[in-house]
Amino acid sequence: MTEHLYNKYVKNMTLEEKIAQLLQLAAPFYDEPGDHSEITGPMEELGIQSETVRNAGSVLGVAGAAKMMAVQKAHLANNRLGIPLLFMADIVHGFKTIFPIPLAIGSSWNPELAKQSAEIAAREAAVSGLHVTFAPMVDLIRDPRWGRVMESTGEDPYLNGVFAKAFVQGFQGDDLAGDTSRVAACVKHFAAYGAAEGGRDYNTVDLSERQLREYYLPAYKQALDAGAEMVMTSFNIVDGVPATGNRKLLRDLLRGEWGFEGVIISDWASIKEMVAHGAAEDDKEAAFKAIRAGVDIDMMTTSYLHHLPELVDEGLVDEAWIDEAVLRILSLKEKLGLFDNPMRGADPVREKEIVYSAEHRQAARKLAEKSCVLLKNEGVLPLRAEQRVALIGPFADSGDILGWWSWTGSKETAVKLSDAMRAVTGNPDYITVAVGSGVDSITETQKEEALTAAAGADVIVLAVGESSHMSGEGGSRTNIKLPDAQLELIRLMKGLGKPVAIVLFNGRPLDLHGVYDQADAVLEAWFPGSEGGSALADLLYGKANPSGRLTMSFPNSVGQVPVYYNSFSTGRPKPAVEDENRYVSKYIDSPNEPLLPFGFGLSYTAFTYEGLTLSSDNMKEDQPLEVKVTVTNTGRMAGTETVQLYVRDISGEVVRPVKELKDFRQIELAPGESTEVIFYIEEKQLRYHHSDLSLSSDHGQFYVYVGGNSRDVQTAGFRLLK
Amino acid sequence: MTEHLYNKYVKNMTLEEKIAQLLQLAAPFYDEPGDHSEITGPMEELGIQSETVRNAGSVLGVAGAAKMMAVQKAHLANNRLGIPLLFMADIVHGFKTIFPIPLAIGSSWNPELAKQSAEIAAREAAVSGLHVTFAPMVDLIRDPRWGRVMESTGEDPYLNGVFAKAFVQGFQGDDLAGDTSRVAACVKHFAAYGAAEGGRDYNTVDLSERQLREYYLPAYKQALDAGAEMVMTSFNIVDGVPATGNRKLLRDLLRGEWGFEGVIISDWASIKEMVAHGAAEDDKEAAFKAIRAGVDIDMMTTSYLHHLPELVDEGLVDEAWIDEAVLRILSLKEKLGLFDNPMRGADPVREKEIVYSAEHRQAARKLAEKSCVLLKNEGVLPLRAEQRVALIGPFADSGDILGWWSWTGSKETAVKLSDAMRAVTGNPDYITVAVGSGVDSITETQKEEALTAAAGADVIVLAVGESSHMSGEGGSRTNIKLPDAQLELIRLMKGLGKPVAIVLFNGRPLDLHGVYDQADAVLEAWFPGSEGGSALADLLYGKANPSGRLTMSFPNSVGQVPVYYNSFSTGRPKPAVEDENRYVSKYIDSPNEPLLPFGFGLSYTAFTYEGLTLSSDNMKEDQPLEVKVTVTNTGRMAGTETVQLYVRDISGEVVRPVKELKDFRQIELAPGESTEVIFYIEEKQLRYHHSDLSLSSDHGQFYVYVGGNSRDVQTAGFRLLK
Repeated sequence: MTEHLYNKYVKNMTLEEKIAQLLQLAAPFYDEPGDHSEITGPMEELGIQSETVRNAGSVLGVAGAAKMMAVQKAHLANNRLGIPLLFMADIVHGFKTIFPIPLAIGSSWNPELAKQSAEIAAREAAVSGLHVTFAPMVDLIRDPRWGRVMESTGEDPYLNGVFAKAFVQGFQGDDLAGDTSRVAACVKHFAAYGAAEGGRDYNTVDLSERQLREYYLPAYKQALDAGAEMVMTSFNIVDGVPATGNRKLLRDLLRGEWGFEGVIISDWASIKEMVAHGAAEDDKEAAFKAIRAGVDIDMMTTSYLHHLPELVDEGLVDEAWIDEAVLRILSLKEKLGLFDNPMRGADPVREKEIVYSAEHRQAARKLAEKSCVLLKNEGVLPLRAEQRVALIGPFADSGDILGWWSWTGSKETAVKLSDAMRAVTGNPDYITVAVGSGVDSITETQKEEALTAAAGADVIVLAVGESSHMSGEGGSRTNIKLPDAQLELIRLMKGLGKPVAIVLFNGRPLDLHGVYDQADAVLEAWFPGSEGGSALADLLYGKANPSGRLTMSFPNSVGQVPVYYNSFSTGRPKPAVEDENRYVSKYIDSPNEPLLPFGFGLSYTAFTYEGLTLSSDNMKEDQPLEVKVTVTNTGRMAGTETVQLYVRDISGEVVRPVKELKDFRQIELAPGESTEVIFYIEEKQLRYHHSDLSLSSDHGQFYVYVGGNSRDVQTAGFRLLK
Repeated sequence: MTEHLYNKYVKNMTLEEKIAQLLQLAAPFYDEPGDHSEITGPMEELGIQSETVRNAGSVLGVAGAAKMMAVQKAHLANNRLGIPLLFMADIVHGFKTIFPIPLAIGSSWNPELAKQSAEIAAREAAVSGLHVTFAPMVDLIRDPRWGRVMESTGEDPYLNGVFAKAFVQGFQGDDLAGDTSRVAACVKHFAAYGAAEGGRDYNTVDLSERQLREYYLPAYKQALDAGAEMVMTSFNIVDGVPATGNRKLLRDLLRGEWGFEGVIISDWASIKEMVAHGAAEDDKEAAFKAIRAGVDIDMMTTSYLHHLPELVDEGLVDEAWIDEAVLRILSLKEKLGLFDNPMRGADPVREKEIVYSAEHRQAARKLAEKSCVLLKNEGVLPLRAEQRVALIGPFADSGDILGWWSWTGSKETAVKLSDAMRAVTGNPDYITVAVGSGVDSITETQKEEALTAAAGADVIVLAVGESSHMSGEGGSRTNIKLPDAQLELIRLMKGLGKPVAIVLFNGRPLDLHGVYDQADAVLEAWFPGSEGGSALADLLYGKANPSGRLTMSFPNSVGQVPVYYNSFSTGRPKPAVEDENRYVSKYIDSPNEPLLPFGFGLSYTAFTYEGLTLSSDNMKEDQPLEVKVTVTNTGRMAGTETVQLYVRDISGEVVRPVKELKDFRQIELAPGESTEVIFYIEEKQLRYHHSDLSLSSDHGQFYVYVGGNSRDVQTAGFRLLK
């Protein structure tokens, strides 16, 4: 299939040219497009020549059609074989039009909107000259201390897989060469980066292979099944070996067992970093281990560049491995149509029309609306136009609502909550705004301003949270509460005796002590993106009805971490009604349960579940079970409900989770309206990895749970017959 | 070897008699020794007959020579084949003479004293009629939330192994039949019980087999190599299967690979609890899985009793498995000399002389003295007899200093700190005592009393901590600080501007915010046992010099857990001098390091290390490396220093810990005295489990660290040649 590429290019390339093709350099190396006659500072630092830059295979972080085209033009003018550069970047939740952070997108439980967000991100990125995005990140997450939880869709392997597929389809479409408004997807971080010990970024991961396969791998697999062209390795170790040099993980599992034929790229400098890991004595050994494991592209180190020639010379590296890597990269360039059209979708004129267009911003607003989660509401929300509102807090009038991984976006143009609320309500003069506190600090003046603003108000809306740099890469926290300054502001406002609604901006599940207990309403906004303010204003004023659902548990406290819904039982489970027995699996100072469970979210209306029935008490392997339930909107507002189906395998050859999400359905119901929701359970959904890691189901007893979250459910049971 | 037992007993036993031999019942079943004509309440509850009790193989928790002898006599009178009962109990850190908790014993870094403590515990237990103790517990621990950390010796596999061996030798001696003052040891909990997720007791454990073998298994192995006669299974799952039903763990690894031929016992009810685990559909399947895995004794459930007959009938269980289990139990009885002497060491007269003897209490006092760890001292300690001391706090005058697992001990006779300080100082009238607060609560009256007591004092000694029930089994906490009431007491006392020394009573590493920062001195007393007060008074008044060293890191906060010294590096280690780089493995709100590292502890004198030299820069496989360092007591008091040797393998086939304890030496130095300490490093100490789990060393670079704790060390390096 790639023979023509071999004959046309690889056969004619020098070893140095091949190895340079495996190198990825960052934008600064291309800051002066032209003949590369000057060796820039970064080049000196890395010890590379302009010759190398000329032969490099891909570039990271160059964006903007004009710049891309200039770089590509200069590159082709200087590249002996006329191999175009591949342009890659982290376009994670939007290019200029920033969508909510992925953890928020997950909370929408709406893969269609997720897909659309990726499609729009791709369209803006592609017209700006990008070919590949380092997304989706589909790492399963259980530890809110980790800063990168904002970048994942949550703690459930099935739901993560659904979103992985949606994102890949949105980015890539069906035809990368023909549809130049798409970009190739690079699923990351392979594998299990989300399990970093202590929630500390880049830290040690230790998992049994069972956990890895059962929980952590499925979402990557879904992304690949959906056609993701690339895989990025993770920074962590997997079974003692850094993923980037992990032959078992990459060559045996990913390429061998799963048959992945696309490009594998290291994460930033992760080949060289094997030395710091203590998995390679020097850079040369790191290069050897990475190429042996099957890593094609070395992102931002010169490990391959400086050491592969010697390793080939010494016979330690088979040149065929290098040929394969080159071929995979060329093959991706061909799939993207770059050999025929090296500028591909890049277009400075259309760029201006498409990027940050009204249509795109409208889509971002819609997704933000669907991503917010109403955590509590005791009659305060929605606000009424005739109410005088004091909008107070560091996020009341802030553009820091895009979240991490929005480097191409602009905080300056993000719609602030204050502006949006004034625009949405009929009575903009009824809104008084005060900053109240900084994110981390509070002054007497700020307190006085807050008290003044609140004095004339009927209701207080507090916009509080974390700065975007408090999550994201390198943003791990040991304390997952709001900073003390904001907790003080909340207490101060609560002390006034007026209704208090809190809007939370944050990139992780928080310990909500001092928030949840103080407020009459809490709306989780996450980092809602460019149009976040507008979406929130719609929700706050009831122009839209909150429908988001958590995809990661909110712990009671950091001392309870990890807490996740799909855990195993123990031999001594805590009884539903707690008793005096000390000898059950519990804490003496805390519930076992999270404050807010997976799947949780309120609405301005209410839904009831009735009449859960199964088509049979027994299920045969070849006959799906039908699960029916009637859901009714018993409130006074139209609303969206996310009906969730969970299953429990009562007894397995190995222990099974107390609940596992198997399916869900989003329905919209008018006030008073009822509908019957039907699910089907098939035998293949009941399979799990047995003690020998083989995948099959067990006969025996199962429970079925249906409800609006993972805690409050209807229950039925069946037996799987063999 | 056991053929005679087979011929004499097993061959003649009915299936029911054999199965009853596998049953262990607790003391209440034997409350009315006699002919068992009355079926007691517990028997009805478990659905068993007096016939069964008569044939049961062992009993749990009966202690006291007279009672034991009565039970044994009645048993033999009723048992058809005259097979004596085996008497077992949890004698963990002393029988009546309670030694410090094991976490404290570990802090002594003194295996000789540990061995002596086990020997004394055995002597008291044996004369009271016990044959087996469910100790030592050698679970490796990293999570201070877990209540049972008090029962382990810490986070290091090597040090845990050293203590495992010492305890087993102390309990068992060399000849169980001949020396009736010894008891058989039962090492527990096999395996990896200490890795319970979230530090919640009985919770899920998930580890790679690499972690299991490299960190968690070595201490069990050391206990078995030292001759431990029994193994207790753990409550947790190991690779998805409860340990109690885990054939790979028990039959393949423990019996097969390690060749263990002793008795395996379940933990309390852990066979039946496989049903709650979801690893057995019912009690019958649980019994099947446990016997198949190789569990000999069913502690306190009737799973075996009620289901093995049917399982044998159905051909699912081979009667040979049951015969083997019976033989192992009979073999242990024979080793203990019970067939010849069913009363063994039980002796009501000697019991009175031996148990809680002055000699034993003296040993407990010595070990308590060696177990306390001086964590901070800014010129406050030792106290001087001429100082007026206010001794304040809930542990000032409390007997709750024995810690968990001291059911045979007596809080009432424990030496309280207040009494001991008065006894040790020359000026008992200079000591004023006030309770100051409860453990969990504080009243205005208590505060006033504390203020009054402190008013006339030159120095304040605060005795604060956790109640013993806040750790131990079922004693997991999410908040590992001192209770707020005591933190308030500390602030109140600190506010007086007088020197404050804090004595801590606790069963786990604590988050010492509000303690360490407030106090001028902190002495970690743990739960020091029957003679704890005396040992502490000696230390406080400088009659003894503190020498304990932590064997488990004290975290900065619970948000940092797990934090342990022998962790792996990452690809992006935090630099020694912190800089602005966000992209290293760190928290944005906390150091990576614990507040107090493994191996840490101060003295009233000071030690310096100089002239670390290696016999060579290169090490050959067959030639140990000599490591020399000169240690000097530079202070004005004689003291004990624990010289610690750590090694780091710079690069491995799999990643290696940043430090690993390989050896240590305790030395006593007079003021001004110097000594040269010599260690030898052998190739076998450098072996680790490679990617295929085989055990070998790698050639290449190593670092050697020597110091008084794991943080403050001298460094040298060598290369291992092949």
